[in-house]
Amino acid sequence: MTSPFLGEMLGTMTLIIFGDGVVAGALLAKSKGEAMGWVGITASWCFGTIAGIFVATAAGSADAHINPSVTVAAAVATGDLSKLGVYIPAQMIGAFFGAAIVWLHYLPHWGATQDKDLKLACFCTGPAIRNMGANLLAEIIATFVLVLVIYAVVSKAVVAPGAFPTGVAPYIIGVLVWGIGLSLGGPTGYAINPARDLGPRIAHALLPIPGKGGSDWGYAWIPVVGPVIGATIAALFVGIVGI
Amino acid sequence: MTSPFLGEMLGTMTLIIFGDGVVAGALLAKSKGEAMGWVGITASWCFGTIAGIFVATAAGSADAHINPSVTVAAAVATGDLSKLGVYIPAQMIGAFFGAAIVWLHYLPHWGATQDKDLKLACFCTGPAIRNMGANLLAEIIATFVLVLVIYAVVSKAVVAPGAFPTGVAPYIIGVLVWGIGLSLGGPTGYAINPARDLGPRIAHALLPIPGKGGSDWGYAWIPVVGPVIGATIAALFVGIVGI
Amino acid sequence: MTSPFLGEMLGTMTLIIFGDGVVAGALLAKSKGEAMGWVGITASWCFGTIAGIFVATAAGSADAHINPSVTVAAAVATGDLSKLGVYIPAQMIGAFFGAAIVWLHYLPHWGATQDKDLKLACFCTGPAIRNMGANLLAEIIATFVLVLVIYAVVSKAVVAPGAFPTGVAPYIIGVLVWGIGLSLGGPTGYAINPARDLGPRIAHALLPIPGKGGSDWGYAWIPVVGPVIGATIAALFVGIVGI
Amino acid sequence: MTSPFLGEMLGTMTLIIFGDGVVAGALLAKSKGEAMGWVGITASWCFGTIAGIFVATAAGSADAHINPSVTVAAAVATGDLSKLGVYIPAQMIGAFFGAAIVWLHYLPHWGATQDKDLKLACFCTGPAIRNMGANLLAEIIATFVLVLVIYAVVSKAVVAPGAFPTGVAPYIIGVLVWGIGLSLGGPTGYAINPARDLGPRIAHALLPIPGKGGSDWGYAWIPVVGPVIGATIAALFVGIVGI
Repeated sequence: MTSPFLGEMLGTMTLIIFGDGVVAGALLAKSKGEAMGWVGITASWCFGTIAGIFVATAAGSADAHINPSVTVAAAVATGDLSKLGVYIPAQMIGAFFGAAIVWLHYLPHWGATQDKDLKLACFCTGPAIRNMGANLLAEIIATFVLVLVIYAVVSKAVVAPGAFPTGVAPYIIGVLVWGIGLSLGGPTGYAINPARDLGPRIAHALLPIPGKGGSDWGYAWIPVVGPVIGATIAALFVGIVGI
Repeated sequence: MTSPFLGEMLGTMTLIIFGDGVVAGALLAKSKGEAMGWVGITASWCFGTIAGIFVATAAGSADAHINPSVTVAAAVATGDLSKLGVYIPAQMIGAFFGAAIVWLHYLPHWGATQDKDLKLACFCTGPAIRNMGANLLAEIIATFVLVLVIYAVVSKAVVAPGAFPTGVAPYIIGVLVWGIGLSLGGPTGYAINPARDLGPRIAHALLPIPGKGGSDWGYAWIPVVGPVIGATIAALFVGIVGI
Repeated sequence: MTSPFLGEMLGTMTLIIFGDGVVAGALLAKSKGEAMGWVGITASWCFGTIAGIFVATAAGSADAHINPSVTVAAAVATGDLSKLGVYIPAQMIGAFFGAAIVWLHYLPHWGATQDKDLKLACFCTGPAIRNMGANLLAEIIATFVLVLVIYAVVSKAVVAPGAFPTGVAPYIIGVLVWGIGLSLGGPTGYAINPARDLGPRIAHALLPIPGKGGSDWGYAWIPVVGPVIGATIAALFVGIVGI
Repeated sequence: MTSPFLGEMLGTMTLIIFGDGVVAGALLAKSKGEAMGWVGITASWCFGTIAGIFVATAAGSADAHINPSVTVAAAVATGDLSKLGVYIPAQMIGAFFGAAIVWLHYLPHWGATQDKDLKLACFCTGPAIRNMGANLLAEIIATFVLVLVIYAVVSKAVVAPGAFPTGVAPYIIGVLVWGIGLSLGGPTGYAINPARDLGPRIAHALLPIPGKGGSDWGYAWIPVVGPVIGATIAALFVGIVGI
């Protein structure tokens, strides 16, 4: 049954189980991980990236993008748009399922938590200081760095044939996502992945979460448009430089 | 003297020395690691997983399950039940010994600590919010993720023959356990391993710990049954997908 | 377009995006990473080192120094001074651009932050206790350790031909930079890299940062001269020992 | 000039620069790393272990023990006592120099720190609860685990010939030392290495540290004798099991 669609779906689902899971673990009342802080949150987004890449690969997506930005960058870099229509829906569906699983996993904690904003933060990102222009710019920059770094890690200049074991590359990319979270997550919570934000935001809107507030749809376009712009610029940049 | 039994026993013992050890280090009064927080606790469960896999392998278990859930998943996946009767007793005995060694290691700290619940937490897991159904579900989900991720990491799609050094795979699995702890440990403390919970719980009941309370036997079935169900579902799922 | 100049420039730019970015994330008001502490800051300098080495290599610098100290050490070790005039300007320009990108990324946070010293700290280093002799000595020692460790990691005694995958060496060097930060960063914030400090200090002086103070030019020579001295001593030491 | 003596000396010196350095960074007044906590301290002992193994190997010690306990274990395991008289003095001298370099590096911070015990802790270990029997037992157990894990990582069962890159094994051993610190460091601060404790304790006694107290010689035998006993038991155990 393995296929690129299934791989992207299950890989993104895994990413979100770890990623939304750690935010829930850090923010929801009475969680054992409450108050673990920014280091813990960004660490588990790293681990979720690694896990997601492995699951995506094992389930049939040799590309293991698990992020529409990366799929857009690949389309820009290669001129082949055929994967967009397969990968992006798979990533969105996977992200939705991942968020739903996190909701189930922390079931008794939603009612125990008062703050509506904390509950929303377990699903999708929001800005530290609401400023559409600056927030969009931050998502563009962070996604540019993500795509640049991914292309550098898998670049021919770095990886002599046979020298870089398959299992190590996902790990390296994961730890660089940890760094992006620590260094560039401050202004917007680093969506850098439209599926990571939109899929769980839809889940927040649809799921019966006790005492939930609105899903902040006014902000929802930023973590979709910003990453797509950032990835496009990065793909063009990488092409011009010849990385 | 190396054998699968000895390997599973010593590997699980090592896992618990690190795992129960870090909880003791974080919770017991006057420990130098007191208040290290959730990041430190989950980190050392990662390191204990890595150490346990190496010790299990070196002592004769090429499978290095060190977890009855993983043994159950392998039995479901292969239809070969013959290892269950060897591995699971070895894992339980190893976990018991690991907990006893942690008790010895922190000997003067048990009397210095007042809170009975903290002392029990150095041995076995307990729920953040007691709710049998939700707690069982959390153990099912977290163990499902564990088994899915392990199968993905060692999947043929990921590991080109010769490309994934032996020593790296245990490390990758360890860091993914770190992520499971950070992301999915909030509701129940992530047993995800019946031996990790039951062996040390028996040790808590039997060992002469100053000022100990009850061993919370009413909860003890959850971290046994939940992981077995989660692992079974994961093994079936992995088989259907073809990972 | 790849070239050693471009590689050193983009690699150092990447290093500073992560490195100055994490300080901004930890110190600027309302950042989601506020108060992440010294472990988080030093972690992301590690990740920035790894990312910078990959980007530098992919963009054309097989040496991937991204640090004038390392370039000086290589010149001392080999007697070949020809790279100094290419690499060091590239590193300085890259560091300046990296700091400018961090300034853009955290745009609304500069005005929200009152403390002028915190704003300067997002660009360049400053001493914990101002004492020119001791501060210089600390930069010499930390850079000596950096260069010693780099030479040890890439030493022929360590790396059997073909045994150390390309992708792993940058990771190992990165984690050792994490350790240098944790262990030796206390007195001066561990510049250990003249470009890391001077490029962003110039950016601080030139960029329109709301409510900024002076750029502390009286201290600026320490994180330039100290690392150059430390790297020179380390290169001579490594040569004498025969590492 | 490379030789086993020089390798063990420089490797242990490097270990202590990182190890004592991070304690100084965490405990001394006005250090930028002040209050980084147990996770940061144990992390940098991990990084120092990795760095020390690389430096030791590069400088001529293919064994890279950098710890008399490991040298004792190897002597017990092989019956060859000839290295004891070369390695152990080298390790002690290296540890002394490492501590002296940390003293120089943090020069203005010693006078700024009031607490005599914190200053001593930057050099050598001390018990959380003073109890000679229990403290000795804790050092025995932690060193037993260290040696068991080292033997497991380099075991033939784990490392298929050619499968475990040279550079990865030191990293794995380093992260397991991180775990030992987190999990077993609580009672005594995990010397697990007689040179790590005695060399810096002598440095504390000899160096002109402003406002220093006594060097706690009454405790000094525990972190020497405990690790030697633990390593001996582990070497015998490993031999019996056949790891």
